[in-house]
Amino acid sequence: MTVNSGPTRPVVLGQNQYGKAENRVVRITRDGATHHIKDLNVSVSLSGDMDEVHYSGSNAHVLPTDSTKNTVYAFAKEHGIESAEQFGIHLARHFVTSQEPIRRARIRIEEYAWDRIEHTGRGAHSFVRSGQETRLTQITYDGSAWEVVSGLTDLTVLNSTDSEFWGFAKDKYTTLPETHDRILATSVTGRWRFGWSDDAQRMPDWNTSYEEAKKHLLQAFAETYSLSLQQTLYQMGARVVEHRGEIDEVRLSLPNKHHFLVDLERFGLKNDDAEGAVYYAADRPYGLIEATLLREGCEARIPVDLTNL
Amino acid sequence: MTVNSGPTRPVVLGQNQYGKAENRVVRITRDGATHHIKDLNVSVSLSGDMDEVHYSGSNAHVLPTDSTKNTVYAFAKEHGIESAEQFGIHLARHFVTSQEPIRRARIRIEEYAWDRIEHTGRGAHSFVRSGQETRLTQITYDGSAWEVVSGLTDLTVLNSTDSEFWGFAKDKYTTLPETHDRILATSVTGRWRFGWSDDAQRMPDWNTSYEEAKKHLLQAFAETYSLSLQQTLYQMGARVVEHRGEIDEVRLSLPNKHHFLVDLERFGLKNDDAEGAVYYAADRPYGLIEATLLREGCEARIPVDLTNL
Amino acid sequence: MTVNSGPTRPVVLGQNQYGKAENRVVRITRDGATHHIKDLNVSVSLSGDMDEVHYSGSNAHVLPTDSTKNTVYAFAKEHGIESAEQFGIHLARHFVTSQEPIRRARIRIEEYAWDRIEHTGRGAHSFVRSGQETRLTQITYDGSAWEVVSGLTDLTVLNSTDSEFWGFAKDKYTTLPETHDRILATSVTGRWRFGWSDDAQRMPDWNTSYEEAKKHLLQAFAETYSLSLQQTLYQMGARVVEHRGEIDEVRLSLPNKHHFLVDLERFGLKNDDAEGAVYYAADRPYGLIEATLLREGCEARIPVDLTNL
Amino acid sequence: MTVNSGPTRPVVLGQNQYGKAENRVVRITRDGATHHIKDLNVSVSLSGDMDEVHYSGSNAHVLPTDSTKNTVYAFAKEHGIESAEQFGIHLARHFVTSQEPIRRARIRIEEYAWDRIEHTGRGAHSFVRSGQETRLTQITYDGSAWEVVSGLTDLTVLNSTDSEFWGFAKDKYTTLPETHDRILATSVTGRWRFGWSDDAQRMPDWNTSYEEAKKHLLQAFAETYSLSLQQTLYQMGARVVEHRGEIDEVRLSLPNKHHFLVDLERFGLKNDDAEGAVYYAADRPYGLIEATLLREGCEARIPVDLTNL
Repeated sequence: MTVNSGPTRPVVLGQNQYGKAENRVVRITRDGATHHIKDLNVSVSLSGDMDEVHYSGSNAHVLPTDSTKNTVYAFAKEHGIESAEQFGIHLARHFVTSQEPIRRARIRIEEYAWDRIEHTGRGAHSFVRSGQETRLTQITYDGSAWEVVSGLTDLTVLNSTDSEFWGFAKDKYTTLPETHDRILATSVTGRWRFGWSDDAQRMPDWNTSYEEAKKHLLQAFAETYSLSLQQTLYQMGARVVEHRGEIDEVRLSLPNKHHFLVDLERFGLKNDDAEGAVYYAADRPYGLIEATLLREGCEARIPVDLTNL
Repeated sequence: MTVNSGPTRPVVLGQNQYGKAENRVVRITRDGATHHIKDLNVSVSLSGDMDEVHYSGSNAHVLPTDSTKNTVYAFAKEHGIESAEQFGIHLARHFVTSQEPIRRARIRIEEYAWDRIEHTGRGAHSFVRSGQETRLTQITYDGSAWEVVSGLTDLTVLNSTDSEFWGFAKDKYTTLPETHDRILATSVTGRWRFGWSDDAQRMPDWNTSYEEAKKHLLQAFAETYSLSLQQTLYQMGARVVEHRGEIDEVRLSLPNKHHFLVDLERFGLKNDDAEGAVYYAADRPYGLIEATLLREGCEARIPVDLTNL
Repeated sequence: MTVNSGPTRPVVLGQNQYGKAENRVVRITRDGATHHIKDLNVSVSLSGDMDEVHYSGSNAHVLPTDSTKNTVYAFAKEHGIESAEQFGIHLARHFVTSQEPIRRARIRIEEYAWDRIEHTGRGAHSFVRSGQETRLTQITYDGSAWEVVSGLTDLTVLNSTDSEFWGFAKDKYTTLPETHDRILATSVTGRWRFGWSDDAQRMPDWNTSYEEAKKHLLQAFAETYSLSLQQTLYQMGARVVEHRGEIDEVRLSLPNKHHFLVDLERFGLKNDDAEGAVYYAADRPYGLIEATLLREGCEARIPVDLTNL
Repeated sequence: MTVNSGPTRPVVLGQNQYGKAENRVVRITRDGATHHIKDLNVSVSLSGDMDEVHYSGSNAHVLPTDSTKNTVYAFAKEHGIESAEQFGIHLARHFVTSQEPIRRARIRIEEYAWDRIEHTGRGAHSFVRSGQETRLTQITYDGSAWEVVSGLTDLTVLNSTDSEFWGFAKDKYTTLPETHDRILATSVTGRWRFGWSDDAQRMPDWNTSYEEAKKHLLQAFAETYSLSLQQTLYQMGARVVEHRGEIDEVRLSLPNKHHFLVDLERFGLKNDDAEGAVYYAADRPYGLIEATLLREGCEARIPVDLTNL
């Protein structure tokens, strides 16, 4: 067996990371006849002293991704899953402290929510997947400081009025008419970064924080009379920062899911009266509005791009 | 311009249909400050005296698919959307009765549910997409008889106990151990056919029927102590037929979403005790269990295959 | 343990089937340093004497879906994978002939094509997935007769001219202008049924048949001057029936992937001259044209609906 | 109409951007009877003096996303689409130089490749979508410096031998056996950054650069005898940097698409002999290997995370 030797290195190895992605973990706990479920998709990403495996293929510093998978399942048993954040903290700490070459661990988790099925049978061990948003978290640990960024995706919301769009800049390619009443709909993708970064600090209540952040996003969306989606975005993110002292930064990515009032006058029908309005819900293209809201004095650390489009 | 003439016809034209698929219609109605939303994806499929367009490209009998799209939007305004079924009936009747060459219309509709966002602002015009299952209906009309098949897809449910699987047939390729306690999870795809077929009959209350059918599916899933997914499927479908006199036939397609208990003994951990059990939620392959349940004396008419896999 | 007894049966069990879906099988064969790859997704569906498992949960007649999965992998080794069709025939025959309660087996297979990577290194064991269409087959066997339906999906094609659409029927909802030059694009989903049904008959060369059928579909699409997508569809299907004696029936489902010429006159630009035309490629809605072409004297047996929309 | 006033601003607005995403543009050019096609998905993202729209909803600085869409289509006509990169450069320059409040434009483009359909009819205007990888580019311009990052996604490759994995680190959760012959398969997602950043520099030949970069990735994958996917990744990225002087940085994200040799000894079958080996192609979880390769002296600027998992 001959192995390709590395190049003579005018090429430098930059940031690198590896691990097992998308470990699907379901944990059931039993409180008598009442069961509880946690349903996660856990991705592990490790960095450290990994030059040699890239240059020569020597795996001496490489804990197999398969071992990181096994660790995810074993930790679900050993530590339980109190919250996605707490579970990620257990994992990240373990990898950084137990494997000398590993200097940084990043754990990403998707969580799927389940509701109980109401029924008259015995026990309480039947669930239906709620299917609304997906809860997200990302835990990063380098042996000293923690960074926790949580969030959600696919939370689709719609206001059927109280949205306008006018007074905008115009250039030679502008044909859009102004409007004083439109549907405003979006599918919220958001991330928020916690101030907590040190084991010496008191840890937030991750589950309460998530429920409250989601509630504020929904309420701010509903309660804002909107002159632009940017304004609504600002209100949504600012409300989270204002009400949740544990959160220092919010990044939101809001596609403007266009609903176009259909021209029915061609068919002798008026389409904007009290008895109802009919819209075409468009797929592509869509406006995409993105911004970061920061607690004063805090530094922005959430990456600018939450999607690839 | 020369046009390919048809072949000398050793080839026969069989069943054919055409129309506009996936018309995304949102209708907002206003009851003072309280708004209501209906969100549909409507597909139109027409058949009839269409030989000539296939043979020669003569479009004299072809109402453009674009016109069928316009009709969907105009009818949403003119007739409203009381239910997906009622809306489809309006459309199907129109196409068959208004265009001489069209002998059969089939309307397929997906409906997406929205919940209200709870908030303290003014008005009630803010919604969040519920994201659970997608409601389905298919209306077929040939000028005399109606066939209405409704259903749902992507309703994901899980029982964390009260499921066994043992006593099965064994061949030389059988390695599966028997189990007396497992997770039973599936993503329900179902269709149910209504007995209603004639304008002279009293029409069912489509929305009540849907809510009740879904409720029975969920409750039967939750309340059945399962020795096989086939048994659970039977209970689910039979319960709908038994409780809903307007429904004559139910077809269910239930993927067995396997959750494998992880072997943690390798790591000195017991994984089946009261404090919790950890499972690997597998993607593929999956068992797929499908069956039709019929009211006695009724004929099966729902196609056997609800998916292509 | 108590088990739900079946209902008192005003409900009748209709068609039912079960098996393991989406078994992903890759087989590598070695011809010295030259390797060959077959990449399949195999779904097994069995029917027979299965009433009892639905009524009582007794699994005595139920070969576990897990065993059917093991059989797929074992047969890939024992019988090889000469073609998807031949592999499905081996499997279907096995299930029907080896398990008494099983009276019908249906095997569905998706096949993914790979091209060789051209390079100057040693050996020929490097592949890149071609990514064009997915090849399909479905084998059904009831112990005496065979039905083989092959096909493809996701073959996306486009003619940038030689397509017109005019002379169509008009109603009050018709606003579409006639056109004498448009883009015609579609994503072909097709199924074709073979005449072969009996072990005593000579079996077709499945791989040659597939390559030729695909070639005819592509060529007929390219060579037809189109006055309607129905006409193009007819030419595509008829060409397969005419040229491939082993195929008796073709069903095609062709979405009309609309490309709308953009109105650029608003910006002082002419958008239909020789230097190029700019189109908006729309997603939804889309026309959907479907038809069956039959060899004269043959019966149509491919289901009418190849999609759920 | 009353409008929510902004908060009293303990909240700071950070990075923000907006624009129209996923404009699907197809351009056909005619060279006599021979047509050419370019098929793009273009997303526009603009930043600048946009505080006011977030605070108050005043749109005075906001060019509508609809105008950016119109610009994409108009520019496809006016400037043509020589390459995705050149097209993005035209657009980015336009937005930054023509609208005072806009200080930075970022254009992201996906490009879909089409092959010609071989046939014997007249003309050359028939195409089939190649379906292999998707070509990507991102152009960023702030009025003075350019950044061009191109790449691809969904290029799926497989080596059926010449891959080993052994000598790795072990911890208490390690159960993976070492292997000296395995399938190595991945779906390549890559980005590469060009050195070109100034209008005064000579621009690369974008299309040649793309074809060559893809060729080097494929060849390096095929020609590397692999002791780890990290080693293969390094060879792939380094080869691009070494051979393409216009490229300073490459980031690759390689999922390890596991193919597990099936244990057939349970059925009396040997599964590793010359006549062929049968593998189970797994979906999730998967190893995920990511790294940056840099030309010596260059700074890394491609974001670390190309996916969200």
